[in-house]
Amino acid sequence: MAPIAITPEPSRSATPQLKTPTTAWSPTEDNVSSLTLAGIEHALPSKNASSAGQAPLDASLLQIELTQSPRAVPAPESPEVAAQKTCTDHMITARWTLEHGWHAPELKPYGAFSIMPTASVLHYATECFEGLKLYRGFDGKLRLFRISRNCQRMRKSAARIALPDFEPKELEKLIIRLCAQDGEKWLPKERPGSFLYVRPTCIATDEALGVQRPQEALLYVILACFPDMTKSKSAPAPPALNGASNGTKKAPSSGLKLLASTEDSIRAWPGGFGYAKVGANYGPSLVAQGEARARGFDQVLWLFGSESYVTEAGASNFFVVWRNKTTGRLELVTAPLEERIILEGVTRASVLELTRSRLSEAMGDVEALDVVEKRFTMADVVSAYREGRLVEAFAAGTAFFIAPVSLIHFRGEDLVVPTEEGESGVYTRVVKEWLVNIMYGKETHEWGVVVDEVA
Amino acid sequence: MAPIAITPEPSRSATPQLKTPTTAWSPTEDNVSSLTLAGIEHALPSKNASSAGQAPLDASLLQIELTQSPRAVPAPESPEVAAQKTCTDHMITARWTLEHGWHAPELKPYGAFSIMPTASVLHYATECFEGLKLYRGFDGKLRLFRISRNCQRMRKSAARIALPDFEPKELEKLIIRLCAQDGEKWLPKERPGSFLYVRPTCIATDEALGVQRPQEALLYVILACFPDMTKSKSAPAPPALNGASNGTKKAPSSGLKLLASTEDSIRAWPGGFGYAKVGANYGPSLVAQGEARARGFDQVLWLFGSESYVTEAGASNFFVVWRNKTTGRLELVTAPLEERIILEGVTRASVLELTRSRLSEAMGDVEALDVVEKRFTMADVVSAYREGRLVEAFAAGTAFFIAPVSLIHFRGEDLVVPTEEGESGVYTRVVKEWLVNIMYGKETHEWGVVVDEVA
Repeated sequence: MAPIAITPEPSRSATPQLKTPTTAWSPTEDNVSSLTLAGIEHALPSKNASSAGQAPLDASLLQIELTQSPRAVPAPESPEVAAQKTCTDHMITARWTLEHGWHAPELKPYGAFSIMPTASVLHYATECFEGLKLYRGFDGKLRLFRISRNCQRMRKSAARIALPDFEPKELEKLIIRLCAQDGEKWLPKERPGSFLYVRPTCIATDEALGVQRPQEALLYVILACFPDMTKSKSAPAPPALNGASNGTKKAPSSGLKLLASTEDSIRAWPGGFGYAKVGANYGPSLVAQGEARARGFDQVLWLFGSESYVTEAGASNFFVVWRNKTTGRLELVTAPLEERIILEGVTRASVLELTRSRLSEAMGDVEALDVVEKRFTMADVVSAYREGRLVEAFAAGTAFFIAPVSLIHFRGEDLVVPTEEGESGVYTRVVKEWLVNIMYGKETHEWGVVVDEVA
Repeated sequence: MAPIAITPEPSRSATPQLKTPTTAWSPTEDNVSSLTLAGIEHALPSKNASSAGQAPLDASLLQIELTQSPRAVPAPESPEVAAQKTCTDHMITARWTLEHGWHAPELKPYGAFSIMPTASVLHYATECFEGLKLYRGFDGKLRLFRISRNCQRMRKSAARIALPDFEPKELEKLIIRLCAQDGEKWLPKERPGSFLYVRPTCIATDEALGVQRPQEALLYVILACFPDMTKSKSAPAPPALNGASNGTKKAPSSGLKLLASTEDSIRAWPGGFGYAKVGANYGPSLVAQGEARARGFDQVLWLFGSESYVTEAGASNFFVVWRNKTTGRLELVTAPLEERIILEGVTRASVLELTRSRLSEAMGDVEALDVVEKRFTMADVVSAYREGRLVEAFAAGTAFFIAPVSLIHFRGEDLVVPTEEGESGVYTRVVKEWLVNIMYGKETHEWGVVVDEVA
């Protein structure tokens, strides 16, 4: 079977044709000033030598081998879906070597990798990933949401963790091709409103224990069946850590209950890598997250520094709506990107952009919002709470989507966050509706990238 | 072939018999005070539920399958050894599942793992490791150096990255068994003074994308042929980043040349995981390390904070010898462990212990040293350098062993570190000799754990 070109809707420039890229990419050069003073010259190479003369990632070279053993599609609410273990029939892989650059990518049957015990990724966390979703729209079409942002971020993450560079558009084409292949069967048209989780990943496969920049890597993309986080609220925890047997007690409201981190557990630090979607941000968070769950919370609210700056909630960005004490105006507030300790979420950016454009003035009964990206502390949140100015809060990310927060436990105190409409506050609901409408094609929008299915 | 008991030398209590452990281990419980104030109870389970009723790691259950395809032993100075790609004939593996606990460990032919694309370790850096060496002594015996320390530290690292707990003594028995199996062939008696690198590793193999505590894991141990770092000085860098083609220039001295990190590149932070041997400490360091190498340095000297506290050199601990300005006495100084941002190195501890016990008074011509673990800054190092009080410096770790430092590049200035005896300073040489004598059996010492070979 020959590769099939993906035809975008004419108005959507974000769905490219499969074609050979015309430019090779080299990593951003650090602007290093002359440092030499005493006797020895330490010249920076004029550019990263690892990219010189290497073959670029090229989606047009895709080799296709379709499965001979199709897998069964699990029922939407089945345990297999809850366990996040089931992937679709195919996956994309692309090998990279320092010697050659990117080899021809492959679309092939989903299955295990053969990885040597010495592989860099198993020892040194030389890995990065992305998370997005493929949506089956209410108009019967498949869509990806702002996929170009994920691919650009993946390139940044790869650079941070010393993995090879690539042209994000080529990754985008490969993801779209896989979605086009498996979408029809795994997101049947009869189930509008359903989705698959798309996981592009890059790992260093060097068969060598030396602590050094990887010389071999594997880029791959898989599509996983995923529970609807907006229904089940949180990912299924390990059975032994869940439920009444631990003596934990659930709060009545359905929103997320967050346990604020303490100073002895810090997720990220300026000069670190908190902004990058690298494995090294996730594994180290699991102990704190496991403890939070064992105590009946859903996620950790990650604070930073002795000032207790609010950064992220679990692996999502965190938003609060409060009334500004001075101006009396409502504000939607989230942590800024400048310090690079939080992830630049695609959902985060979309919430900010939509709110800025649609709620700078009142919308019917819904009061206007000022949108603010700034440092804020738990003391600010506690003040707003005590003074009745705290309106609502939510976490925003791909996995949890827009998840209302109902409680924050901080220094021995439970802050019960208002959820005016029961399930959530007004703004949480409105923002979620805007996004759902774009994702599932109820609203035609450039962020909703239509994927044409392989016939 | 049946498992063969490892017979320790009678005086070495650190080489245990293979026997079933009598106690199951549960992770350390955090001492969490009552936090409940407002309406909702968040009780911590009485102990980590994941360890309840699970089978412990048990070396006495070892299953043995010897290779039918013996591998060739590369020549000591060959490119295969330099590439750190060649492992011995066998490896140890032990599977863990949340349901069962530890399954029976296996000693089996070295080879690739089959790992699913969704495996936790490939996405979330749920991995930790250890590094030690197996030495062929000048008395013909095989020795491991303070192996119990590595196994205890591995347990701490596993706990930090949410991997399963185990009794360190059982890991120790498994490592010793593998060394006993492959030592004779891979470290022939005719080559005293040679060694293999021992790499115990634990990875989370959950076939599930949920960000949560792993429910499946694999512990494994491999033995790799490794270049002698004391001869080649640094691990081989990628060919394209090495050599004169980059316009870099090497300093004449043979010691390590260190590039001090800048504030925009932080290895570890308080409340993080810098003390644990987890992958998440290594991958994020590779960009800075690659840049340092491209500029002609060997390793990064990792500083912390606006005060530029000196922490580690590459993946080794860092020591400096200077004359105290106030007391006029010589001091051996290294960063302290309290903040948990540096690794508690086995070599570090050994250097400190030996120096305290053997150089508290002058040893022949060699002046006595005060041994100090304390915070110190680059400003302190620069002052000592400018005032002629800087005596020597070295990095200490398993891979690089005791490596003299000849240069530190900090804020545009090259500090040329004295190496009084040419190759290194006096103390660097003395400390190295002490350790070499123990490792290779020239001195009988409880730290040198003799491994009896499988007949």
